Amino acid sequence: MFGLSKTFELDPRLKADTFVIREDETACLLLMNDKRWPWLILVPRVADVEELHDLSAQRAGLYMQMATKTGELLKAETGCEKINIAAIGNMVRQLHIHIIARDVGDPNWPGPVWGFGERQLYSGAEGIARAADLKKAIHVPLFS
Amino acid sequence: MFGLSKTFELDPRLKADTFVIREDETACLLLMNDKRWPWLILVPRVADVEELHDLSAQRAGLYMQMATKTGELLKAETGCEKINIAAIGNMVRQLHIHIIARDVGDPNWPGPVWGFGERQLYSGAEGIARAADLKKAIHVPLFS
Repeated sequence: MFGLSKTFELDPRLKADTFVIREDETACLLLMNDKRWPWLILVPRVADVEELHDLSAQRAGLYMQMATKTGELLKAETGCEKINIAAIGNMVRQLHIHIIARDVGDPNWPGPVWGFGERQLYSGAEGIARAADLKKAIHVPLFS
Repeated sequence: MFGLSKTFELDPRLKADTFVIREDETACLLLMNDKRWPWLILVPRVADVEELHDLSAQRAGLYMQMATKTGELLKAETGCEKINIAAIGNMVRQLHIHIIARDVGDPNWPGPVWGFGERQLYSGAEGIARAADLKKAIHVPLFS
């Protein structure tokens, strides 16, 4: 939609810790490699951006609309109790938006997922299969 | 902007735990009563809404634009290292958006603020004065 960013590179930590659900020239939608929660991460493909307000208002609005729609579809897919949406970035500074399905009784309910305990990794095949299922479920029309 | 909601009532817990920075018929901007962090909360004045996706796309976009602009101005006011923006709502279900100024070395940096330790309360006068300063600094033009 905005043209392929020539200089955007996915942060190495995000790359190492996730499976790709979908990516195009606008954004990457990732699955966090942590079986404890259905935990998605939307990364705008825009170089050198840390804060939502570093984007133009138009782009920030687009990405938040994507994140909101992703949350709606993730709630439908999982039947979860509550969606958590957050742009934090204290550790990984590249702008990324968390979209997480939370349930009563999940490992840290009702506390936050960030910084809690140890990740439980998918096997490679499990992660790839879960990402493929989510790709079918998360039809976000704003993706180009 | 959307007309005064006749049925909206601020959640009692949000009311008890905050000072009012500004409120009008569109939204309430609140200061969390916790001196550990400059911690603002934006509450859309829309009754019976829990998730961002429960709002129309237009309203969700408006409120996220408000939250983003609030974050930009809060970063300018505080000189903080990073803004955290989040709609969580696992405990208080009324839709509200956190906008928090974070700094290297703050009480739980780089971990999240939610669920961490005990709040450190402002005195009533301190909280009112801080909210008044923030009202001057946070000129969010989208407020009606």
